[in-house]
Amino acid sequence: MSDIKEILNAVYDGTVSVDEAYLMLRQKPFSDLGYAKPDHHRGIRQGQGEVIYGEGKTADEVIGITKSLLKNGQDRVLITRLSADKAKAIERELDITYHNRARLGVAGAMPETRIGNIVIATGGTSDIPVAEEAAVTAEFFANNVTRLYDVGVSGIHRLLSNTDTIMSANAIVAVAGMEGALASVIGGMADCPVIAVPTSVGYGAAFGGVTALLAMLNSCASGVSVVNIDNGFGAGYLAGIINKATEK
Amino acid sequence: MSDIKEILNAVYDGTVSVDEAYLMLRQKPFSDLGYAKPDHHRGIRQGQGEVIYGEGKTADEVIGITKSLLKNGQDRVLITRLSADKAKAIERELDITYHNRARLGVAGAMPETRIGNIVIATGGTSDIPVAEEAAVTAEFFANNVTRLYDVGVSGIHRLLSNTDTIMSANAIVAVAGMEGALASVIGGMADCPVIAVPTSVGYGAAFGGVTALLAMLNSCASGVSVVNIDNGFGAGYLAGIINKATEK
Amino acid sequence: MSDIKEILNAVYDGTVSVDEAYLMLRQKPFSDLGYAKPDHHRGIRQGQGEVIYGEGKTADEVIGITKSLLKNGQDRVLITRLSADKAKAIERELDITYHNRARLGVAGAMPETRIGNIVIATGGTSDIPVAEEAAVTAEFFANNVTRLYDVGVSGIHRLLSNTDTIMSANAIVAVAGMEGALASVIGGMADCPVIAVPTSVGYGAAFGGVTALLAMLNSCASGVSVVNIDNGFGAGYLAGIINKATEK
Amino acid sequence: MSDIKEILNAVYDGTVSVDEAYLMLRQKPFSDLGYAKPDHHRGIRQGQGEVIYGEGKTADEVIGITKSLLKNGQDRVLITRLSADKAKAIERELDITYHNRARLGVAGAMPETRIGNIVIATGGTSDIPVAEEAAVTAEFFANNVTRLYDVGVSGIHRLLSNTDTIMSANAIVAVAGMEGALASVIGGMADCPVIAVPTSVGYGAAFGGVTALLAMLNSCASGVSVVNIDNGFGAGYLAGIINKATEK
Amino acid sequence: MSDIKEILNAVYDGTVSVDEAYLMLRQKPFSDLGYAKPDHHRGIRQGQGEVIYGEGKTADEVIGITKSLLKNGQDRVLITRLSADKAKAIERELDITYHNRARLGVAGAMPETRIGNIVIATGGTSDIPVAEEAAVTAEFFANNVTRLYDVGVSGIHRLLSNTDTIMSANAIVAVAGMEGALASVIGGMADCPVIAVPTSVGYGAAFGGVTALLAMLNSCASGVSVVNIDNGFGAGYLAGIINKATEK
Amino acid sequence: MSDIKEILNAVYDGTVSVDEAYLMLRQKPFSDLGYAKPDHHRGIRQGQGEVIYGEGKTADEVIGITKSLLKNGQDRVLITRLSADKAKAIERELDITYHNRARLGVAGAMPETRIGNIVIATGGTSDIPVAEEAAVTAEFFANNVTRLYDVGVSGIHRLLSNTDTIMSANAIVAVAGMEGALASVIGGMADCPVIAVPTSVGYGAAFGGVTALLAMLNSCASGVSVVNIDNGFGAGYLAGIINKATEK
Amino acid sequence: MSDIKEILNAVYDGTVSVDEAYLMLRQKPFSDLGYAKPDHHRGIRQGQGEVIYGEGKTADEVIGITKSLLKNGQDRVLITRLSADKAKAIERELDITYHNRARLGVAGAMPETRIGNIVIATGGTSDIPVAEEAAVTAEFFANNVTRLYDVGVSGIHRLLSNTDTIMSANAIVAVAGMEGALASVIGGMADCPVIAVPTSVGYGAAFGGVTALLAMLNSCASGVSVVNIDNGFGAGYLAGIINKATEK
Amino acid sequence: MSDIKEILNAVYDGTVSVDEAYLMLRQKPFSDLGYAKPDHHRGIRQGQGEVIYGEGKTADEVIGITKSLLKNGQDRVLITRLSADKAKAIERELDITYHNRARLGVAGAMPETRIGNIVIATGGTSDIPVAEEAAVTAEFFANNVTRLYDVGVSGIHRLLSNTDTIMSANAIVAVAGMEGALASVIGGMADCPVIAVPTSVGYGAAFGGVTALLAMLNSCASGVSVVNIDNGFGAGYLAGIINKATEK
Repeated sequence: MSDIKEILNAVYDGTVSVDEAYLMLRQKPFSDLGYAKPDHHRGIRQGQGEVIYGEGKTADEVIGITKSLLKNGQDRVLITRLSADKAKAIERELDITYHNRARLGVAGAMPETRIGNIVIATGGTSDIPVAEEAAVTAEFFANNVTRLYDVGVSGIHRLLSNTDTIMSANAIVAVAGMEGALASVIGGMADCPVIAVPTSVGYGAAFGGVTALLAMLNSCASGVSVVNIDNGFGAGYLAGIINKATEK
Repeated sequence: MSDIKEILNAVYDGTVSVDEAYLMLRQKPFSDLGYAKPDHHRGIRQGQGEVIYGEGKTADEVIGITKSLLKNGQDRVLITRLSADKAKAIERELDITYHNRARLGVAGAMPETRIGNIVIATGGTSDIPVAEEAAVTAEFFANNVTRLYDVGVSGIHRLLSNTDTIMSANAIVAVAGMEGALASVIGGMADCPVIAVPTSVGYGAAFGGVTALLAMLNSCASGVSVVNIDNGFGAGYLAGIINKATEK
Repeated sequence: MSDIKEILNAVYDGTVSVDEAYLMLRQKPFSDLGYAKPDHHRGIRQGQGEVIYGEGKTADEVIGITKSLLKNGQDRVLITRLSADKAKAIERELDITYHNRARLGVAGAMPETRIGNIVIATGGTSDIPVAEEAAVTAEFFANNVTRLYDVGVSGIHRLLSNTDTIMSANAIVAVAGMEGALASVIGGMADCPVIAVPTSVGYGAAFGGVTALLAMLNSCASGVSVVNIDNGFGAGYLAGIINKATEK
Repeated sequence: MSDIKEILNAVYDGTVSVDEAYLMLRQKPFSDLGYAKPDHHRGIRQGQGEVIYGEGKTADEVIGITKSLLKNGQDRVLITRLSADKAKAIERELDITYHNRARLGVAGAMPETRIGNIVIATGGTSDIPVAEEAAVTAEFFANNVTRLYDVGVSGIHRLLSNTDTIMSANAIVAVAGMEGALASVIGGMADCPVIAVPTSVGYGAAFGGVTALLAMLNSCASGVSVVNIDNGFGAGYLAGIINKATEK
Repeated sequence: MSDIKEILNAVYDGTVSVDEAYLMLRQKPFSDLGYAKPDHHRGIRQGQGEVIYGEGKTADEVIGITKSLLKNGQDRVLITRLSADKAKAIERELDITYHNRARLGVAGAMPETRIGNIVIATGGTSDIPVAEEAAVTAEFFANNVTRLYDVGVSGIHRLLSNTDTIMSANAIVAVAGMEGALASVIGGMADCPVIAVPTSVGYGAAFGGVTALLAMLNSCASGVSVVNIDNGFGAGYLAGIINKATEK
Repeated sequence: MSDIKEILNAVYDGTVSVDEAYLMLRQKPFSDLGYAKPDHHRGIRQGQGEVIYGEGKTADEVIGITKSLLKNGQDRVLITRLSADKAKAIERELDITYHNRARLGVAGAMPETRIGNIVIATGGTSDIPVAEEAAVTAEFFANNVTRLYDVGVSGIHRLLSNTDTIMSANAIVAVAGMEGALASVIGGMADCPVIAVPTSVGYGAAFGGVTALLAMLNSCASGVSVVNIDNGFGAGYLAGIINKATEK
Repeated sequence: MSDIKEILNAVYDGTVSVDEAYLMLRQKPFSDLGYAKPDHHRGIRQGQGEVIYGEGKTADEVIGITKSLLKNGQDRVLITRLSADKAKAIERELDITYHNRARLGVAGAMPETRIGNIVIATGGTSDIPVAEEAAVTAEFFANNVTRLYDVGVSGIHRLLSNTDTIMSANAIVAVAGMEGALASVIGGMADCPVIAVPTSVGYGAAFGGVTALLAMLNSCASGVSVVNIDNGFGAGYLAGIINKATEK
Repeated sequence: MSDIKEILNAVYDGTVSVDEAYLMLRQKPFSDLGYAKPDHHRGIRQGQGEVIYGEGKTADEVIGITKSLLKNGQDRVLITRLSADKAKAIERELDITYHNRARLGVAGAMPETRIGNIVIATGGTSDIPVAEEAAVTAEFFANNVTRLYDVGVSGIHRLLSNTDTIMSANAIVAVAGMEGALASVIGGMADCPVIAVPTSVGYGAAFGGVTALLAMLNSCASGVSVVNIDNGFGAGYLAGIINKATEK
């Protein structure tokens, strides 16, 4: 932001004209592809690379945005909510790695070194796809991930026997459907932030994840916050920010 | 039911006239007080005494129904959802014991001997009124009750250190508000039926007990069933039936 | 639980080393298959065998978990929410009996002797699949089952003519969609626990079973508790525990 | 409506000028009191008198509208949702009879002769205020009413012993809260229209009458329709139309 | 009901034994097909024939129940919610007429004479299938029907120009989706009962008919009652009862 | 409306008979096609042409109504919610232009001159179909449209750099899913009416557009009003009325 | 916005220093009172004065903000959602006019000349407070208002007899509770924008205005948009913008 | 956890008897006050002190638990959701500081040194109480707090002029009611975790904070997570953990 002063100084110096300065102060820090306006400054502004939300975009649109981002200096691009079909169509034009269960595509190489420790736990086997979305996202942003799957509260000893793992994390992602009690129990055991992800797993009065969402929002444990239903990406991204801040 | 035959035999014998028999077959096994029709056969039919739902009835109506029930051979009467004010008004005409926290009134003496073991657990201190409604109801119907209060899942060791108590029950009533995870964790530990009672404790997205209700209905543990929000009476009554059947 | 003392005595005696004891006290009473952690102690802990929730698991995962359970000493395994397609895929590798209407698979032989009496009633013909899930589950756990189908309250005499059946049960499962009134009427007739199962049968304001669920939770009859929409398994399992406790 | 022709004929005859006719065709068949436009033709148009919805109107407004209606030829006026306080304020200026439980005020004398038969049944004692609103409304419009209170389905014999009463009705109003099953059971017994009125009686998941409303809308019995929660007036009014049409 | 006396007299006379009488008093007035218990007395008890709810029943079950009903003396059978596919399968074994838009099947001939007048109005073209379900149902039960389609309130003159039709009805069925205002406007014009049928027509915040349902329940016009979303059958059936009672 | 007087004068003059006048006063200003009653006066009455809601109508019905409207003097007809398949079927009989993304069909030529300025903004790329429905609708009614797509609030500079565009509009349509914050931010920047259109874009707790709808209704900015979820047509139509009134 | 250039020119000219310019470009166009940041530029930016939302603010805070606004050149201040009690407290320190029914306070004189025509219609007498909030707001911003109260659709002739009034408006505010059908009917009659305001008037399934809100969002008439429940201010403000744009 | 080994070693050494060790392994790390079981190890286990949820507890219970915590070595105790009345009652027996707006009580002295930087922003003045609950909580746990109140999105420049403050935070708490857009806009600007707190501020379709909650869960910005409605404590606590981890 302090570059406003730089521009003003340049105007004063006469090295930049008023009109140019006007343009610079007004200019758009993003490309305009017509159908989308990818943001090239986010890497700088937020310390993380741009991500493409793949749902509701055609393969061509995803390719166009990805190329625009890579061309503008980004090392790698994460494409979320990418169906296997669309991934195939994209692979014809672009070199991407497709993570099937997580429904994520990655253009460019994954980071070579990762730091810290994020624990990603699930209540059951059916919650794994959402957990993988969180895990690969966190790895994409150079964080270490420990997977702890199928440790739901109906057999509490499965969770208790992993107390050490839970205590060692910088951030925990608790992924669960049905009654979502996993977040509360982990929240009571851990001393780091717990990000709860309700999943749409369950039937009847699970209401596509609403029950788990509400339960997690009402967690009686402190240090728990919640993201949208099935939002593995959001949880992985946020856990990454916390993990990195802790390691620094 | 086989007394239909007895009546028919009596008709055949001529000891009972056709019209009398007609009346007997049609006759109402309840009193008609105009504003209410208390059911005097329930004790026989269901093995438990009649209960008066106090809310929405005037003190006079409660007195009238109670007297009618006592006169028709019932030893004691339980009055639920009875406000302290109404209890006072009733006490002027009728000898009742009022359980303040449980908001229950009892006319007649409590049973002298109780059998079996029902464990009643709460997630927090604020759930105690509902738990007491369950406990006194169970005791009214001659069951032993073990109270286990404030053992919510955010400090799971409080629950685990009571494993023996939980394993010794014939039936467990799990009372919790907020995210209602208590029922799932107990359900995973116990080998007897667990009756979950969501309470209206909590704020915001607790929605007056709806979150706990939904969470309990979606419990990933088997052997858990649910009653209405704050329905301590219903849970205590049902736990009593199960406890007695187990003891017999 | 008192075996903690046994271990401690063995340590004291020197027959078990500190490290071994440490392991024993910490050791996991479940297998870790990576994608799942089947619980081999549940049979002992809860007096019933382990059950696999089939939905959201691949055929291979179901096969893997089933084999692990059978290998660890369990006589039979129940697989719920199993689609016909997945059942066929499993049958290629494993000897299972598939109950089409109930969508249940059974590995191993059903128990030879059953005890007690569970009545399973439905409001209509369309509720039968859920009722069968309850019935086969109860039979899997060695309980006798009496089926009483299509006795909904719009023709109350169909229900009344079965009063004797209802009075003879140790536990009743009332399965109904639409307005779910069956549970209340049976609840008023029976003297044993009634487990109400709302079904997603109905249209419009039936809201996929929510109306029946709410109605059952608000049953004006005592002794009624509720499980999740379409949760025939949960009802059959719970009825089984109650039935067996009553018979013992 | 055929009086349009009369006006046109008068124009043709010259007995009415074009401007007068224009006025007549456009003229408002209601008074304009500024804050309200009471409808004096409804008695003619719908065969029933105008009714004042008392809630949200000041005592002065109610008095004003009532006087306007009485002055314009109506014999009696029904004021619904009238609080006791407002009734007292009105009584100072106007001769009305106040029905306390039904929260109805009546200006003018009730009709001397009533016809037909409307049965009004309630599930419990707490539903009586709504039932009385229906009953007094029906009587205001000159219908005979049979009250059948506290016959809820949890003790089904109370209802069955009144089968003859139910069979004799021209229209039945079934008033119930909680799970609202009364409407379904009566609907299966009766051969006349059943108007179901959900009440806000109950607690927890009764949701102020929503559960009863939904249950009644999903009634498996034919011939049942539903009005708004606690809308005793609407049910009594509608039952009256049907009763009178049947008697004619 | 008075035949109880006849049976008792016969017992007294000795013409019927006690055991036979016992059986008669207990005997089921319905067939038991195992999967269904069709009710042969309803025609007598409610003055209308039995109807089969086709959804969730196999073609074979529908055929079985239909045959059982026809064999037991019913002239014609109405099958509701019958898909075109199932209808075709049934037609191979049974002579039925299939009403495509109404999704109704009729076994046996439609009644030759119809009486009275029921007006069935829709808000738009898309509401016609539900209206036809109501119309054919009413005709099945021997009522005359006047169809008044696409007269929604956004062009109020379409409705006003049909005032005479509306005034001539014994009962009106108002079928509308979206905001469901049709019922209120007709309710203000008519002097007979108006049965409102919300339809699932609309998008977004129409919520599959919930908006129309709520709007109709809150109709500011008197004489309006409501049935379930898309429940054309229920409305046609109820309109028929009212129409016939009026004509008698 | 003043033509009532003309008709009356004609009656007085004798140039029009009473019966004819009666007919004229009662006559329907719409065609009756049986399945639909297209409104030919709306162009005059509301200053805009008639529009056909394509969903739930067969291709034949759409063709019939379109022809009826064109024959009765309308220059062009807009068909909304028209699937590509139905459009193809219509094109065989009628010359229409199909706007694929907007799912709109236009019979007749688009207006040659457009006036004013409507800005249509979207939060993301996935909201474009709804925005196009608004844009083409506005153009159909002869308004100029400026498209401003993918300017969601998560990168607020994209919006701020278009402040001039926003300030120049006569009306703005803000189209957004997810949390729908776009409407509030634009509402705070603009000095003309902002019509907010929630879209069904998003997942989990987006609830098919309900979240965006609620957020927009609660906008803390003044001058914002809301239409139904995904109702691009309604927004474009309303923006057009405002734009034209402003230009006049 | 073009004053950015002016500042830049001044920097170039040397008449403004870089630091001063930096400040000007960054400077806050609002006062910071600590508890609030009133916006003094809104009058310029949006062509309307600042408004204070009175709810949740203490009398002292309202006084502070009002004084700050008046001191910074605003002629008059509108305070919404102002309780009578708070108004009294404010009047001790500040000269305001309190509109009791509308719950609005006005500091400073109302505008002397008003332009155009806004029609504000209500369904019933109970909707008047919300309508008055809209009316006084519109008058505060110098618009003419025509009040048309108690013209709900259950007596459609009350509305039809005011067709001329409706046709003469530049903008219409339709205020209604219960089923909210008023907006649809007016929407079908008018050729100007209709702003629908759902009110919390009604009971039972009116759900505090939700039913009216949903109905209005689903209006089958074009040109209708909706604001929040009971949001008379928002509707009056928006109607004012449209009215003024039309008059200009 | 490794102290299990220590105990085992002590058993082996004979310095601790088997029974003593049994006790130690089983012993409860909390006091049992009957009505509550305060957790004295949480400070060690989670690095933060125990907090008392004041709602639903009597003043005596709060005093009892506070004393128990202070006696067991905790320096200060935070009491949340403490009404002014209850605070007064407590002050008679215990030295506490009461934060009126935040409704928090603090027993013991606040920490002398605080670290890092948490920004707490609100959309409006009415959100301040919840923000203060967050702020005082964070300060209680020794974090620095920057308050940024009344910067809602309807006047976006108020937020933009504080970009530097936002960029300097380790964690941000965004507190907003109504449409809750503040979280999304801040989420797009910041590079640290944003904890969104929906408040119950607003009316009508704000639904007591549900709209803000849903909007925040659907935030299109990354790095945003959500806590329960009005849960200032939870947000302040979580922000504190993140802030401290970042500073370490």
